[in-house]
Amino acid sequence: MTDLVRSWIDSANSPDTDFPLNNLPCGVFSAGETAPRCGTAIGDFILDLHALEESGRLEFGGALKTGRWNAFMSLGAQDWARLRSTLTQFLGEDSDLKAAIVPHLVPMDAAALHMPFDVAEYTDFYSSRHHASNVGTMFRGPENALPPNWLHIPIGYNGRASSVVVSGTPVIRPHGQLKGPNETNPRFGPSQRFDIELEMGAIVGQPSSGPISVTEAFENIFGYVLLNDWSARDIQAWEYQPLGPFQAKATATSVSPWIVTAAALEAFRTPTPQREVELLPYLAEARPMLYDIDLEVGLAPEGRAETVIAHTNYKEMYYSAAQQLAHHTSSGCPMRVGDLIGSGTISGPDKTSRGSLLEISWGGKEPIAIDGGTRSFIEDGDTLTLRGHARGNGYKVGFGECTGQILPAPTT
Amino acid sequence: MTDLVRSWIDSANSPDTDFPLNNLPCGVFSAGETAPRCGTAIGDFILDLHALEESGRLEFGGALKTGRWNAFMSLGAQDWARLRSTLTQFLGEDSDLKAAIVPHLVPMDAAALHMPFDVAEYTDFYSSRHHASNVGTMFRGPENALPPNWLHIPIGYNGRASSVVVSGTPVIRPHGQLKGPNETNPRFGPSQRFDIELEMGAIVGQPSSGPISVTEAFENIFGYVLLNDWSARDIQAWEYQPLGPFQAKATATSVSPWIVTAAALEAFRTPTPQREVELLPYLAEARPMLYDIDLEVGLAPEGRAETVIAHTNYKEMYYSAAQQLAHHTSSGCPMRVGDLIGSGTISGPDKTSRGSLLEISWGGKEPIAIDGGTRSFIEDGDTLTLRGHARGNGYKVGFGECTGQILPAPTT
Repeated sequence: MTDLVRSWIDSANSPDTDFPLNNLPCGVFSAGETAPRCGTAIGDFILDLHALEESGRLEFGGALKTGRWNAFMSLGAQDWARLRSTLTQFLGEDSDLKAAIVPHLVPMDAAALHMPFDVAEYTDFYSSRHHASNVGTMFRGPENALPPNWLHIPIGYNGRASSVVVSGTPVIRPHGQLKGPNETNPRFGPSQRFDIELEMGAIVGQPSSGPISVTEAFENIFGYVLLNDWSARDIQAWEYQPLGPFQAKATATSVSPWIVTAAALEAFRTPTPQREVELLPYLAEARPMLYDIDLEVGLAPEGRAETVIAHTNYKEMYYSAAQQLAHHTSSGCPMRVGDLIGSGTISGPDKTSRGSLLEISWGGKEPIAIDGGTRSFIEDGDTLTLRGHARGNGYKVGFGECTGQILPAPTT
Repeated sequence: MTDLVRSWIDSANSPDTDFPLNNLPCGVFSAGETAPRCGTAIGDFILDLHALEESGRLEFGGALKTGRWNAFMSLGAQDWARLRSTLTQFLGEDSDLKAAIVPHLVPMDAAALHMPFDVAEYTDFYSSRHHASNVGTMFRGPENALPPNWLHIPIGYNGRASSVVVSGTPVIRPHGQLKGPNETNPRFGPSQRFDIELEMGAIVGQPSSGPISVTEAFENIFGYVLLNDWSARDIQAWEYQPLGPFQAKATATSVSPWIVTAAALEAFRTPTPQREVELLPYLAEARPMLYDIDLEVGLAPEGRAETVIAHTNYKEMYYSAAQQLAHHTSSGCPMRVGDLIGSGTISGPDKTSRGSLLEISWGGKEPIAIDGGTRSFIEDGDTLTLRGHARGNGYKVGFGECTGQILPAPTT
């Protein structure tokens, strides 16, 4: 287990911060009247990287002055490493640049956070075995829980990039076609089974134009975000055959405001689980490519305390993001900088480690207790919050919260 | 039936051209050493609209100087109409600007054509009843041909925008996971059942941020292209349960080089067919929103003559693009300028009017005769070409060809 890298900024050395010097995540913030700009989080502060490039202390061809991380990602791995090592020097406890850096530290409390990158396209996978088994058991019975292809393919579908929003953005309950099992015809109305999906998102930082290997895929991933793929289960149930989920997943997908880089997660690599069926060679991992990241979901009704309703870990995945990305390119599909790859809902083996309310309440049959009542699915006014931490020796690497409050469906 | 609008450019008055003055489609071309630039097709020529805006003859805030049509589409319907009426004056037989226009006419033979717009996101529907019935009959039997939701919902799924290419781009046969019905495990290899899908694509020209009506959706569509959604049927068969097609549709989708505007198609509007099940109100069309456009597919083996293998019409659709787009927004899904909405494969009632080889050869069981042999699916070296024409009185409005040659799968 690796140790804390100490900073001259005291709050970055706290065991409770998401943002020690080991992290250096990538975000976009505004404070006062400035337009959104690139920054990194360090303890209770955001370091203004736009200003540091403006002043010449950082030199990345202006990429840090674009208000999004896409241009910087496009520069490639050498520049990713150069920024990380430079910032580690600037902020390390022996830095001799404290006086030059201090004017560019913005208290996090005083900043608004924005989408850290432009989403080129958004793909969502279905690669947690416990999640797929739980959902399959509910829909098709325990004997047919896993589809026949599941142990061979990282199953995925294309999502909707235009619906990806940053943490804190309210989410409006959607309308859609709904049809109960005893109804002859569908009706159009607000979703009654609106849900979360606790996921990690991998961000493609280098383009590719044809099939790439799992190792190449791993190297093309710039970093990770927490991701909540809001899902209308009742819309999905009626629409999804034969071409998959569509409007059920198009209302919103929330991501954490901070991209934690693959470099920051390097110390937490862990292998995918033992295979019962050997993977085809194009999906084989040469080294561990998953990460040990504790994940939790909190639910707070309006004006009530939050209850943690799920606790799981990213290492529960059956396929890593690198395997998903390699599969994504297998047909020749071009990938671009800013492509977002959702892991799929991450569920563990226990009842308390399920990453969706569909599973937690077992399709609504087993509502759970929360402050002030019970829940099967999300109710108007509820705030859902994802948190994630990789844990080192006396420190943790976090993503900030990925949160969103549900607002009532519009009247039509 | 409307009449030809005559131009002083003779070739635009021919009954055989795709590009009479009634059309004025939107493309991007290059000739010589110029960077790709916006142009319109007129008879055998391309009119350089970049140059006309540069010289001040057209004034659209520089939108025609961006090398793509997205900026112009963003301007909105008033400017769309203003460009059309201005060009109709410039090119009409009574124009007094002939001398000023002539220097900006480029012979089409001397020009290369490029993607006319940046695809924001790409969605593909499944809205031709004969196609859905044919495929459903093959896969589930004639009694379950149409899924239960089909008559209520324009079924769609998100495709991959990064894979959309302009006509003329070669298409490399993809690799993928394949598993025959008698095989225990999948293998990884070149698709053996690579196919076309004859479609129309609608292009969103104005953004929306929440649910919109069918009428609003109709008004937001800038124009249409021919679209060939290349599909690997064997990859699809193994991967598509439960989340829909993914890598089977990610190799390439080809579009015609010319966007024919909704204004140019106005004279050819036709209603969607009689409904046997009443649609929910959010999908009701106030007026005819489909178009009468003859469509055909040609297949030419390398070094052989082309055989027309299908002939159908866009009016065979059960749902219009406006209905598809309205449904697309029903969950609150934001739409952006440049979103591309595929109709789904367009098949008619007859054996000769089927829009995919899967249907034409009935899953490979009934190969068809072509010059030099037979075909069930596409073979290496084959060139597939889509053509489309709306027919007026002594003229036709066309899209140019949407063509692509299949190259062998890469050796791995």
